[in-house]
Order: sequence, then C-alpha cells, then structure tokens
Amino acid sequence: MLISTTKRRVIYGETDKMGFLYYGNYPAYYEVGRTEALRELGTSYKHLEDTGIQMPVRNLQVEYLAPARYDEMLTIRTIIREMPGVRMHFEYEVENEAGFLLNRGSTDLVFTRVADNRPVRPPQWFLKLFLPYFGE
Amino acid sequence: MLISTTKRRVIYGETDKMGFLYYGNYPAYYEVGRTEALRELGTSYKHLEDTGIQMPVRNLQVEYLAPARYDEMLTIRTIIREMPGVRMHFEYEVENEAGFLLNRGSTDLVFTRVADNRPVRPPQWFLKLFLPYFGE
Amino acid sequence: MLISTTKRRVIYGETDKMGFLYYGNYPAYYEVGRTEALRELGTSYKHLEDTGIQMPVRNLQVEYLAPARYDEMLTIRTIIREMPGVRMHFEYEVENEAGFLLNRGSTDLVFTRVADNRPVRPPQWFLKLFLPYFGE
Amino acid sequence: MLISTTKRRVIYGETDKMGFLYYGNYPAYYEVGRTEALRELGTSYKHLEDTGIQMPVRNLQVEYLAPARYDEMLTIRTIIREMPGVRMHFEYEVENEAGFLLNRGSTDLVFTRVADNRPVRPPQWFLKLFLPYFGE
Repeated sequence: MLISTTKRRVIYGETDKMGFLYYGNYPAYYEVGRTEALRELGTSYKHLEDTGIQMPVRNLQVEYLAPARYDEMLTIRTIIREMPGVRMHFEYEVENEAGFLLNRGSTDLVFTRVADNRPVRPPQWFLKLFLPYFGE
Repeated sequence: MLISTTKRRVIYGETDKMGFLYYGNYPAYYEVGRTEALRELGTSYKHLEDTGIQMPVRNLQVEYLAPARYDEMLTIRTIIREMPGVRMHFEYEVENEAGFLLNRGSTDLVFTRVADNRPVRPPQWFLKLFLPYFGE
Repeated sequence: MLISTTKRRVIYGETDKMGFLYYGNYPAYYEVGRTEALRELGTSYKHLEDTGIQMPVRNLQVEYLAPARYDEMLTIRTIIREMPGVRMHFEYEVENEAGFLLNRGSTDLVFTRVADNRPVRPPQWFLKLFLPYFGE
Repeated sequence: MLISTTKRRVIYGETDKMGFLYYGNYPAYYEVGRTEALRELGTSYKHLEDTGIQMPVRNLQVEYLAPARYDEMLTIRTIIREMPGVRMHFEYEVENEAGFLLNRGSTDLVFTRVADNRPVRPPQWFLKLFLPYFGE
C-alpha cells in the first residue's frame, strides 16, 4: 500500500454561496492528490504524457461528509492499494486542519496512447516504481 | 418518473490539454441539469433557498464513457425516479449532438436549513410539485 | 460595428461565499460572448482552429460595476468596433435581467499558428466575414 | 513597498486545449497572491471578513506575455506600492521556474461591510500593518 499526503488551501473562487468548497471542485483536489503521489514515486504524470501515454479517468465517486470552508488548509491523502493494471485505482481522503475527515472518494483511470487515444498497458518502467510498495 | 432535458455548450476554459472536457467539470453540468429540472417543475432551486432550505450534495458518481469535445452542444438529461424523501436522488446522462452517450452519473442531495445547516424534511409545497409524476 | 448578444445563467459553482459571481469567472463569460459573435458571423472559433490558426488572448480588462447573483440570466453583449488586424479587439458588456449594466471589459487577441504558436495574419476568408460590417 | 512571493502549480484542470493555463484562471492566481500577501503581514483576508469587512474587486487588468504550461510551478509576486485608502491596489507578476516573466496584472479592491455591501474605510488595525512598509 502506498499513501501520499499533500496540502491545498481552499481559495475564495472555489467556495460557493453556501460559503463552502463547491462540490464540483473536489475532483481537482483529487487530481492534485494523485499527481503528487506519482511525483513522490519519482516520476510525474507530465513525464508519463511526454512518453506518449495519458491516463483518462473512467469513473469517479465522491462522498461528502462535512463541508470544507474558505481558507482552510486541507490535507489530501491519496491511497494506492494495488499495483496498476489495465486500470489504476486511487482512493482519496480530505481532512481539515483539525484532522476531521470531510470528504472521501475514488477514481479509476486507464492508460491510453496520446497519439490515438487507444488503450495500452502501463509501461514497465512505470510499474517498477510500485514494486517496493507491493512486493513481487 | 420525471425526465428533464437541457443543453450546454463546452467552452474553451472547460477543456484540458487532452482537448476534452475536463473530468472535474461534469458536476457543474449535473448542477445545470438538476436546476433546470426543478425550474421545469414550476419552482427553482433559488426559490427553495430563499425560503430557507438548501440542498447540499452527499454523494456523486460519474462514469466517463467517451470524451466530450470543445464547442460540442451537449444534452444533459436529468432523471428523477422517485419522490424526494430525506434524500433526493438525481440521475444524469450527457449526450453529444450525434446522440452518443458520453457520460452518466448520479447525485444524492439532502435538505438542510440555511440558518444552521441542520437536516430538515422537504417542504410540502415542494413535494406537491412531484405528485403528478409519481401518483399518490 | 458588430454587436452580438448571447445569454448565460449564473450557476451555483460560479458563485463565491459573498453570494456573487466570482470575479475570476467573467473571462469565461467573455469567451462565450466572442465565440457566439464569431458563430453569428457564419464561422466558429473551432473552425478557425481546425484550419490551423488559434487566437490566444494578449490582454484583458474588466470593470466590476455591480455584482451578478446566483441564477440570474445574464446578457453578454460583444462589440467589435474595427476590422481584425494583427490584433483583434473585443469589448463586452454584461447586464442582468433588469437591463442593469453589471460589468464591462475588453480583450485583445492575436492570431497564431497551432503548429508552432507563431504569429500570423488573419486569413482572408476570415476577414471577408467582417466586410459587411465595416465597409471597404 | 511590500513584495510577497508565493508558489502555485498549474494543474491539468486549469489547462485548456491549447495545452496552456487558460487565460481565465489568472484571476484565481492573483487571488492566491494577494491572500498570501495579507497573511505575511500578520492577518488574513478571512479574518477581515470575520470582522465584518469584505473587499470586492473593482477592476482587473491582465497582460499575457507567454503561456504557462501544465505542471509548472509558478511564482506569483504580489506588489503593494502604497498604503490602502478607499481603494487598495495590488500588482502581480507570474514567473515560471526558469524565472521567465509570463504574465502581469493588477487589481483594485474596495472595502465594504459584509452586512450591507456598503463602502467603508479600511479599519485602523488593518492600516497599522502596512506602516512598517510605508513609513508614517
């Protein structure tokens, strides 16, 4: 299992007239979470795209437990529970500064070629980065 | 069952470097869908808030079947399958101009008081609007 | 002079905790305004990009006169005062349903090749569309 | 003069199909810049609002010099050249990791009461924070 943690502060433009982080902004927070998880592994999503492979999202689930408020520094915890295969599954937990869990969710992404959007297997160099976390 | 249909065009600012509608923008399309569904019923979400009741989202599911592209006029079909209770369930289908299904999803919303964010039952006048669609 | 008018409703996700349309969302409204102005002329910005030419924005000015509120149907008036040259200047006025002017601004865009981002002159077929509005 | 520097990384959702940071996303970067400038002064915009005063934007100017790209860590430099009065003027410069200036702009904000949106003078405690930078 791999757990990566990053922080992001709620800006004014992300709040809505309820005064809370708009429900539609969590996918961007999840994007930040999984991007920083890949960076922690020693690569980057940008690098993956530069090699001709992209990872479109196939599904998204979000559970809203409590509202996030303006100017709160949120902690995004990204959890990878298994080796990437044809799909790659990410789970996310978003906490406020008091350590209170506000939101959790998950996404499944696939690997496709930038050139023609066709599905491909994840490259070997990419899979190798995960071996220390998942054994053989 | 109640089905409401509305349209929305993909703008440049909603696309991402893949050239497609960014995955995180669908919740806004769903918001447009359910807002117009309520307007078709003869009320509006704004009016509901003006009476002191708001509807925060409790969960969201999105399935990405095919990408939506820049400048496409998307059709958002919003489906309400049952009378609102403590929760209100909305389903969404997003199609392109060729009638091809690109995306589907759902949300559950609850009713809370604007004054203190506490859960409440949906008001009687609101429920009455749904009676023609769901019988007694 | 060419004046094009289009409408767009303020959604919840575009408001901020002041309850108003967030100041950073007006550029998207301006994008909608100029895109629909080109469509009214008989072409589209998408078509221009398909021919290999794009129009990045070089500067933006926005004047905020009064707030736009949730669920208001805004009118975006886009004004083109002169033939496109190396630069193309657009002016914008945003009104609420009562015809009250809430916001005005302008942008300058240039023409560049999609292939290499280098500046080019606007194509002849594009310029011809403007002739009826600006004479010889 | 007061100069405050903060960083923000361009996420996928902020890029557009040109592959660059969408022109309409710079105002959010400016918001981050001026918010962190106030925090550096020892207060926060959130605290100001908690005391009943908000700062709506009255005008915005943006000059786009070169595109910002996906995953670049941008530096936002916020410059305050004079004591806040009825208006408060902020200037912004956005650089990429190579120190290349990509974008610059400015905003004027005013002070209003949260309760009724009426203009007020900036509070004394707020002005005092600026004295070390602007002398008597």
